Amino acid sequence: MTESDATSLTSIAYRGGGFRAETRNVPAERAVAISVGGSTHAVMMATPSALEDLAIGLVLNERIADAFGEIERIEVVETDMGTDVQLWLTPERAKTYVARRRQMTGPVGCGLCGVESLELAARDLPRVAEHPRPLAPQDITRAMDRMAGAQALSRLTRAVHAAAFHQREGDGTTMLVCREDVGRHNALDKVAGHLARQGVDPASGFLTITSRVSVELIQKAAVMGCPVIAAVSAPTELAIREAASAGVTLVAVTRGDEFEIFTHPERIEGAAVAARAAGHQEQALTQSGMR
Amino acid sequence: MTESDATSLTSIAYRGGGFRAETRNVPAERAVAISVGGSTHAVMMATPSALEDLAIGLVLNERIADAFGEIERIEVVETDMGTDVQLWLTPERAKTYVARRRQMTGPVGCGLCGVESLELAARDLPRVAEHPRPLAPQDITRAMDRMAGAQALSRLTRAVHAAAFHQREGDGTTMLVCREDVGRHNALDKVAGHLARQGVDPASGFLTITSRVSVELIQKAAVMGCPVIAAVSAPTELAIREAASAGVTLVAVTRGDEFEIFTHPERIEGAAVAARAAGHQEQALTQSGMR
Repeated sequence: MTESDATSLTSIAYRGGGFRAETRNVPAERAVAISVGGSTHAVMMATPSALEDLAIGLVLNERIADAFGEIERIEVVETDMGTDVQLWLTPERAKTYVARRRQMTGPVGCGLCGVESLELAARDLPRVAEHPRPLAPQDITRAMDRMAGAQALSRLTRAVHAAAFHQREGDGTTMLVCREDVGRHNALDKVAGHLARQGVDPASGFLTITSRVSVELIQKAAVMGCPVIAAVSAPTELAIREAASAGVTLVAVTRGDEFEIFTHPERIEGAAVAARAAGHQEQALTQSGMR
Repeated sequence: MTESDATSLTSIAYRGGGFRAETRNVPAERAVAISVGGSTHAVMMATPSALEDLAIGLVLNERIADAFGEIERIEVVETDMGTDVQLWLTPERAKTYVARRRQMTGPVGCGLCGVESLELAARDLPRVAEHPRPLAPQDITRAMDRMAGAQALSRLTRAVHAAAFHQREGDGTTMLVCREDVGRHNALDKVAGHLARQGVDPASGFLTITSRVSVELIQKAAVMGCPVIAAVSAPTELAIREAASAGVTLVAVTRGDEFEIFTHPERIEGAAVAARAAGHQEQALTQSGMR
């Protein structure tokens, strides 16, 4: 978080039957365009910090580039209308991108918000690799606590989401990065961009996020190759289906020392036995014709 | 809410140090395309009920049509990939729409999710008309309670948003419609579509919504001509700016009998005095250069 991520203003609060002026911090927002090779790829509202991470993460998570090394140059240009983050790809990758853009006809959605073409919404995702060793239930709950502790902008404004990445260290795990944004998709893209810049393989740890889990977040996790995502709030139906098919362990409704596992429980110690006894939820999903 | 709006499945819950299988209801999602005159205008994930309302509300809120009467025909077509809601405009309005589509170059964003072109994000909104008579603080808090009571799908899944519209009746207000959706923008569009079909002028009442308030929700309220929107959670900076400039009264952080007013307090009884005593927040916004 930087100082420009929040704005202080006066609201008129109604409390105990009367009105009074109060100071409130609200999250700053900036219109951010992500340009690739000189063409605008996407435009969104975002929290102003870590915009290079946002652009790198978006370009990787939307598979415009497959690796950080395919991004040759990044420039952040401030304009009256907002910020333009300009990325330039290596010549080979740029050719593929231009060919892909030509194929696009009509509005195809932004890939950020559940707005996808019907075809993209059903696209095949890479199946993530197995996790080396199951996580302990405490790894999940402690990671959530750690993320909560790092949400400086949320403490100030109560109006932003956060995403974080954690890696096993010794008997427990450690949080490598936490990013906050008015958009939950942005927060996750910022984490992806940071990991790419640091050369950290997302397959080596797990993601946490403060929001509900919709299908696009699962798609981002799968493209990152991250085997586990744990969320504070509940998942949607399509997110569960997509996580089941992409091999992502989806943990959600995480509150205090409790959580629920929706897909691939084998990556959490002790959960597989309960899952088998219950006839396994993924089979239940398949049987009820969800996929 | 209809039965198909929720899906029941088994999750593996971690509680009190152990795992057990539990039944959980998750909101159903469907890829929904909105086609205008045979071309896909937008595609989104949505809760399957009230899709005609969604399409009508979207088309009006994105100013593809200015009035319900400019929509000649609606057809809901089920496909393997999702649902296609096909709208046909009157010949005169269709001409304008085709001309507008031709002007679009590159991705322009969906208008549903904070993803807008830099230009659209700064577009001038119509200024809403004055409210005939100020609302009492209790009108706001009771309307919130009424909306909470109508959130059947949320009670079942804890993973959907709701929007509602309320009108003055006698000494209090009455709730005309409440719509739930996995997307908060969809919920508001569904309310707008319902009001348009019923011939209710949104200027005659106020909106409530369960979510945070981002700028697109204010834009929708302003296009609807609805003078007041009250939200459960906090607003973003740009939402406040946009509400100030469009003349929309923005109430947020509504919890129990308390709430905060961020713009145009003159439409809430008793708030204007406190606002003047505090030097008025909108002036504060202007003075600090926010607009």
